[in-house]
Amino acid sequence: MQLLEERIVRDGVVLGGDILKVDSFLNQQLDVELLDKLGAEFKRLFDGCGVNKILTIEASGIAVACMTARHFGVPVVFAKKSRSKVTGDSVYSVPVMSFTHASVSEVVISREFIGRGDRVLIIDDFLARGNALLGLITLAKDAGAEIVGAGICVEKAYQDGGSIIRKTGVRVESLARIQSMSETDGITFVH
Amino acid sequence: MQLLEERIVRDGVVLGGDILKVDSFLNQQLDVELLDKLGAEFKRLFDGCGVNKILTIEASGIAVACMTARHFGVPVVFAKKSRSKVTGDSVYSVPVMSFTHASVSEVVISREFIGRGDRVLIIDDFLARGNALLGLITLAKDAGAEIVGAGICVEKAYQDGGSIIRKTGVRVESLARIQSMSETDGITFVH
Repeated sequence: MQLLEERIVRDGVVLGGDILKVDSFLNQQLDVELLDKLGAEFKRLFDGCGVNKILTIEASGIAVACMTARHFGVPVVFAKKSRSKVTGDSVYSVPVMSFTHASVSEVVISREFIGRGDRVLIIDDFLARGNALLGLITLAKDAGAEIVGAGICVEKAYQDGGSIIRKTGVRVESLARIQSMSETDGITFVH
Repeated sequence: MQLLEERIVRDGVVLGGDILKVDSFLNQQLDVELLDKLGAEFKRLFDGCGVNKILTIEASGIAVACMTARHFGVPVVFAKKSRSKVTGDSVYSVPVMSFTHASVSEVVISREFIGRGDRVLIIDDFLARGNALLGLITLAKDAGAEIVGAGICVEKAYQDGGSIIRKTGVRVESLARIQSMSETDGITFVH
């Protein structure tokens, strides 16, 4: 998606350690107008697939998930990275490794919000090694839901998460696929 | 706001330990259409105040903040509950106690996303003891931003957070103000 690629080139910052900083529009400051356009594009890509629920993971997936859900007219359910007094014990759970935070979280979702008969579109901001997405796929399958596909804003296509997940048969649509990035040579995209 | 009060009565669950479970529409499953209407109401309440940025805190504040920002045509900035490789060191930070998680987090926001000249509307889903909101106010003030006010979805008006914050001069608008709640007698609202 040209709009997103241009924005990444303009405002993204490549840092050492394989980090793409896009927190001026996608990760901490949220350009809601842009996210709304990404949501419209996910709607175009997964239109007619019978999506009745958007599934994402806190925190930075929530914004784009909401702006996507608006176009589908369906609710969002977000998986949490910890249990709380509210969550209770009736949850599906899976351990997920976060590269950005260098830690493993137990990711949970209440059983009451996902189940058999649901047709779930998973939405997330990033796909790299695929840990978060694999976790969400596991949660949705454990719940007996049908996974329509995954809509990703930015995929680091030079890492293996995307190909691992596509090999499992899950349809993955990424709006910007990074072929390479470096502090000196900038960012190139897969087309 | 009648729409929200009715929804709380219909779908909210009062649990022991002063917990109001509204995670079927506000906290884990997100009724995006409802949140959009709450956002429109915040726009009506704070219209003409020159808001140029919506400030919230991860995770459950992000959804309603985004749906509010859409009506103002401004970006959201959300404070994070931990530092990551992306956040870096150039942050404002404040410790915040979470009642729901029974823990203290260091809440941070990158200096580049808030500063002098900003007119900030703080949006959050809950106000009870006021710890999160006080933390966000501190961050915004440290940054030199002007605080236009705070828009809250659900205020536990029988706790002292709201009155403490109003006494500091910050305008607080809550869409549903709970006067009392119990597992046996249900929920009443302040009108």
